[in-house]
Amino acid sequence: MEHNFDFEALYELLKGRNIRALREKLAGMNVVDTAEFIQELEGEERLIAFRILPKSLSADVFSYLDSDAQTAIVSAISDRELEQLMDEMFVDDAVDFLDEVPANVVRRVMQVSDPETREIINKFLQYPENSAGSIMTIEMVEFHDRLTAGEAIKQLRATAPDKETIYNCYVIDDSRHLTGVLPLRRLLLAKDGDRIREMMDKEEQVISVNTLDDQEEVADLVRKYDLISVPVVDNEGRLVGIITVDDIVDVIEEEATEDFEKMALLQPSEDTYLKTGVFKLAKNRIVWLLILMVSATFTGQIITSYETMLAAVAGLTACIPMLMDTGGNAGSQTSTLIIRGLALGELHIKDYFQILWKELRVAIICGLALAVANVGRMLLIGGTEVPVILVVSAAMVCAVMVAKIIGCTLPIVAKLVHLDPALMAGPMITTIVDAVTLMIYFALATIFLL
Amino acid sequence: MEHNFDFEALYELLKGRNIRALREKLAGMNVVDTAEFIQELEGEERLIAFRILPKSLSADVFSYLDSDAQTAIVSAISDRELEQLMDEMFVDDAVDFLDEVPANVVRRVMQVSDPETREIINKFLQYPENSAGSIMTIEMVEFHDRLTAGEAIKQLRATAPDKETIYNCYVIDDSRHLTGVLPLRRLLLAKDGDRIREMMDKEEQVISVNTLDDQEEVADLVRKYDLISVPVVDNEGRLVGIITVDDIVDVIEEEATEDFEKMALLQPSEDTYLKTGVFKLAKNRIVWLLILMVSATFTGQIITSYETMLAAVAGLTACIPMLMDTGGNAGSQTSTLIIRGLALGELHIKDYFQILWKELRVAIICGLALAVANVGRMLLIGGTEVPVILVVSAAMVCAVMVAKIIGCTLPIVAKLVHLDPALMAGPMITTIVDAVTLMIYFALATIFLL
Repeated sequence: MEHNFDFEALYELLKGRNIRALREKLAGMNVVDTAEFIQELEGEERLIAFRILPKSLSADVFSYLDSDAQTAIVSAISDRELEQLMDEMFVDDAVDFLDEVPANVVRRVMQVSDPETREIINKFLQYPENSAGSIMTIEMVEFHDRLTAGEAIKQLRATAPDKETIYNCYVIDDSRHLTGVLPLRRLLLAKDGDRIREMMDKEEQVISVNTLDDQEEVADLVRKYDLISVPVVDNEGRLVGIITVDDIVDVIEEEATEDFEKMALLQPSEDTYLKTGVFKLAKNRIVWLLILMVSATFTGQIITSYETMLAAVAGLTACIPMLMDTGGNAGSQTSTLIIRGLALGELHIKDYFQILWKELRVAIICGLALAVANVGRMLLIGGTEVPVILVVSAAMVCAVMVAKIIGCTLPIVAKLVHLDPALMAGPMITTIVDAVTLMIYFALATIFLL
Repeated sequence: MEHNFDFEALYELLKGRNIRALREKLAGMNVVDTAEFIQELEGEERLIAFRILPKSLSADVFSYLDSDAQTAIVSAISDRELEQLMDEMFVDDAVDFLDEVPANVVRRVMQVSDPETREIINKFLQYPENSAGSIMTIEMVEFHDRLTAGEAIKQLRATAPDKETIYNCYVIDDSRHLTGVLPLRRLLLAKDGDRIREMMDKEEQVISVNTLDDQEEVADLVRKYDLISVPVVDNEGRLVGIITVDDIVDVIEEEATEDFEKMALLQPSEDTYLKTGVFKLAKNRIVWLLILMVSATFTGQIITSYETMLAAVAGLTACIPMLMDTGGNAGSQTSTLIIRGLALGELHIKDYFQILWKELRVAIICGLALAVANVGRMLLIGGTEVPVILVVSAAMVCAVMVAKIIGCTLPIVAKLVHLDPALMAGPMITTIVDAVTLMIYFALATIFLL
């Protein structure tokens, strides 16, 4: 692995137990790099490196470790150290950590936490997976809407060190309802006596999400409105947390990965490839492989019922793979564009007829070009009679048209019935296009060649 | 389209030429929503709505319009209005805008701009597409490293309104070399007399990029280090700009879209689907369709050379689609995981043998499960002799193994020879797996059935 820092030099210090020099180096590095260094150590050495970190840093470094390293460290440190660690961590990082580690680690963390922390963590662990509540943090800056700018800055300076971000401040009323947002930039430029209420972005301008909203919706808002943090409110409109853009960047990557996996008909997995066991990997793949294999029974039946014709007319069978592949490829292209457009909100169900009309024209252009190329190709290779070549080429045009129609229709239908459009990608489309293509191919052959 | 605001109410105000009320409403909305409203208007009405915006808002709203709307507005406003607009826009937004609009619009913008702006824009337009330079902005906060915290805050308050972000301040020396980064949070908590140089994150902690770095690398750094802005330096290490996280969010989406498109063997397009013409869409698809169709010649030849056997043994031909599809699907699953893992930096070339060994085991599990299911399926349907069923099922196991091996090998080979691994996805894998699967199938049939 490439590092942004000199792993060997640090490791030398550790091996020579040159603790003071190592601590100074580690504290002077970017916290993500410090975590990367500790991540790569093992056992005793990892524990030493973690323990010598300045207290102010260790919680931050800890939250960048993977769950294996976190579990190992937590299992090795004392209750007192663990308590301190949990105190220093932001709630969203603590919840991420507890979500991933074994139950006995969670139990121990809960035991050493004070009742208040325990209650907060329990509440967070109850939010549905991938909801806004499950990824938010509670360390935000909130001002009462009666404050002046001067009072707000004073309050900010007193509490800033404990906040995850201070660059958007959230304004609440007596009953904690979110009434506005005040970017720090505006607060800095204000006069001491200016009223928060007059300076803040008000209701119509504030973008907020509900604790139960899906993280994907939150990501869409952050992308659309270029936010660096979003306030999270409960069903009564009370401010309960914020989600920062760094977590949203991870959500966007995760959601894209999930779509890639679904489009290849893999069951999405949260673990990285190298960490997933062989049986888990096989399990994630086998279901759809089985379903599609069984669906291919239909294609098999079509061929069986034309077996005599296939045996009689030379060259017909040889073209089956080419027709199937071309249909599948043409369909995958279309469905990929539609699925991605739907995911990014660039396409909507109501655009269907416009899409269909476009795809039909594209299909005719592509189909004809492929047919002409195919005639040339088959003449060049030789050995096939001209009528067969013409039937194959005509079937090609039909296959591409069918593929494009199915490729743009199925994702939209899926969206309409609240299924994930990503399932209607290459493999699924291919299986359906295959059957239709073969039916058309054999029908044309029956009409013109028998 | 769903709106976050009441389109009809605003449109009523516009139609009734209730200008004052409309201006007040528009100015009170989130700027992204204001742009969305103007975007949906046309001709005269759009121009009116844009012109009544407070001057301080119009540049911001303008940068959220799509290029068609931007072109229409620029063509309709006076030179003086255009000059003001360009003055108010951030450099990165101006460059985005000029990148998308017709050449005559660019010429006119250049004519009305003052020489200094013209020079800056020209320089930006020369950065390679998708480089850090092409997406950066120059409106950052920079402090000389000799300043104290008090002096810095004074300077910040004087210049903040013109900066794209003030939440990370960049520290430079006499020759403009980037020497450190100072988060605004730390500056706010400092005492007036504290020295910037003592407070800032120093060299080892600062993540910066070069103007020529690819935007994907920048995105990887932002994701890894949870940054809200990245400094951009030239070859001499001098600070020339910054890239903010909102632009990186767009880059991440763009890069994912590009991978989706490449994986379906589409030529990536920067335009949205509905805006792309039929011929452009066809052109983006036809090249790979042709290449893969011609490659299928090989598969055709294999079938041709076994045509006698296929005609002699009932049921052999009927299973070809199922074998091909299953092989293709199994290969797509693997290649998708590997391509995504490489893109996210979770997998590396050196992991190849570990991946291969894992895939082999997964392939055996999946292959056997599919073979058993297939025996059951074919017995249930009936009409095929047992030896044929066994040959088909054995070929299935081989097909899955071949597919998984090719599916994990090709993306890594592509990476090794500096091709984009995303090209080695479903369609490409399928074409290769088809040929190999058929060869194995016919070889097994020849040995056991003839």
